[in-house]
Amino acid sequence: MRNFADSLVRRIDELENPTVVGLDTKLDYIPQHIKDYAETLFPEEPTKATAKAIWLFNKEIIDQTCDIVPAVKLQYAYYEMYGYDAIKTMLLTARYAQKKGMLVIGDCKRNDIGSTATAYAEAIIGKTDILLNDTMEMSGLDACTVNCYLGIDGVKPFIDVCKRDGKGIFCLVKTSNPSSGDFQDLELTSGEKLYEAVAAKVSEWGEDLIGEEGFSSVGAVIGATYPEQAVGLRKIMPNAFMLIPGYGAQGAGADEAVASFTAYGKGGIVNASRSIMTAWQARSDYFGPEDFGKAARFEAEDMKAKLNAALHNRKYV
Amino acid sequence: MRNFADSLVRRIDELENPTVVGLDTKLDYIPQHIKDYAETLFPEEPTKATAKAIWLFNKEIIDQTCDIVPAVKLQYAYYEMYGYDAIKTMLLTARYAQKKGMLVIGDCKRNDIGSTATAYAEAIIGKTDILLNDTMEMSGLDACTVNCYLGIDGVKPFIDVCKRDGKGIFCLVKTSNPSSGDFQDLELTSGEKLYEAVAAKVSEWGEDLIGEEGFSSVGAVIGATYPEQAVGLRKIMPNAFMLIPGYGAQGAGADEAVASFTAYGKGGIVNASRSIMTAWQARSDYFGPEDFGKAARFEAEDMKAKLNAALHNRKYV
Repeated sequence: MRNFADSLVRRIDELENPTVVGLDTKLDYIPQHIKDYAETLFPEEPTKATAKAIWLFNKEIIDQTCDIVPAVKLQYAYYEMYGYDAIKTMLLTARYAQKKGMLVIGDCKRNDIGSTATAYAEAIIGKTDILLNDTMEMSGLDACTVNCYLGIDGVKPFIDVCKRDGKGIFCLVKTSNPSSGDFQDLELTSGEKLYEAVAAKVSEWGEDLIGEEGFSSVGAVIGATYPEQAVGLRKIMPNAFMLIPGYGAQGAGADEAVASFTAYGKGGIVNASRSIMTAWQARSDYFGPEDFGKAARFEAEDMKAKLNAALHNRKYV
Repeated sequence: MRNFADSLVRRIDELENPTVVGLDTKLDYIPQHIKDYAETLFPEEPTKATAKAIWLFNKEIIDQTCDIVPAVKLQYAYYEMYGYDAIKTMLLTARYAQKKGMLVIGDCKRNDIGSTATAYAEAIIGKTDILLNDTMEMSGLDACTVNCYLGIDGVKPFIDVCKRDGKGIFCLVKTSNPSSGDFQDLELTSGEKLYEAVAAKVSEWGEDLIGEEGFSSVGAVIGATYPEQAVGLRKIMPNAFMLIPGYGAQGAGADEAVASFTAYGKGGIVNASRSIMTAWQARSDYFGPEDFGKAARFEAEDMKAKLNAALHNRKYV
């Protein structure tokens, strides 16, 4: 039986690279020549032109990084913003990345209860016969992010699909944004903070899904921007696999990003979105717009080197 | 300037009916003859046949209830589960309901930060120029549900769109499910429970969006299954408009559903999904499958009568 966490750990080890490329593709990130070309293909259909531009961009980023980066993270919000053709592009991107050997994480932060949570789980990470007269696999991503405010009712349907299909989830525990403390840092009468209480539950929920490599497919999202808290969260969730946003554009460096990794330098994957996608803009002295894919690869190599250096000389323990 | 809460309050008053029909359309709810017909239209394309069946069902429910029910609630999970053609159907359903005079609430429980939250807000309730060479209005629902675990960073982008376009949000405060207490009922050192702390913030966030009718377009989701808590939550959020799930299939009755209404019987809207959509099954002694729309109308009239009776003789105050 496939276990998502095992697949992820092994691919990270193979590539010696605990990073995930975030494809939060905004039109601003796409070079003008790609957008112009897409418009010539669909001059009267802006939603199709938009979706095509995003696809051409995503495909090149995947082609340039699939042999050095283990996973991609798709941010649902942007695809939804650009309309249903873009949603189709997102699913196509997921398929393509999987075909190229990458694991695909849907960053959708979904949450609901009972049969509705099951519908989300099936939509995003499931593979079932849900259409009239069909057995088509719908979305079939490898993992997704989940918001746990509704309690176990909202999480169990996802865990059930994880068990059945060898998929994974990352539960929001301590997010990377400045106001994450508004509720997450509230102090409980138990002596914990709310995010610590959530972490304890996530650890418990994941016990059945710990793979051969020692990590659970029920993982957690821990912002790189809160390294002290991240160190404590590893103690509360010794077996959770951590998805770590906040590196780069949000201000955290490599030292902060690896704070929740185990003492052996395992159990985490660090996301970078904007810095990879817009490397062609940031490094315009080296790369032209037509080399946006190569610039992304260069940036990904740079990030890999920085994370490995930080793992060999830990600042937060 | 349009204010969502004003529009909602006025339409509820006009129809004397504080209910919203939930279109959480599952294939199981749709009569066989509709599904058969959809398959004859798209024999080789199951995603299109599925989407067509859902559309035909939704349209009839709207036609039969638009003159007696002020709003519809679209549950995103099911449309996402059935694929991108179904997502298109969801947007078409939203447009059609609006054309028929109904307000449309997207039950998507979205949550993210910064520009990503803005993307969700624009995708769901916005109307902006975001496509290549186009000024198309994308989704343009009247309101949506939001999960606040990420704090104000995740909510402000939605509030900004509400202010700009006269839209609304409903923040998850105390959800209707059995395990909603896992985190929401945790006791804080401040003496509040977590859901009360969330409620206090929601009330504060909504101050700028209080309309002429005295209610804010920053509303709250309060499960009908927790009536005692609902009474307390009205005190914490005197101006919030409450979206109330849990009536009917989840076990709460009319008395429980109106617990968070003001002393004047205002400021709430009660959702029913399954009981309306499957009225043709539950009342099969009166209605055949071909009369599923009439059965839905009958059930909606029944619910209206029960809620008004409960409002005239309040059990929870």
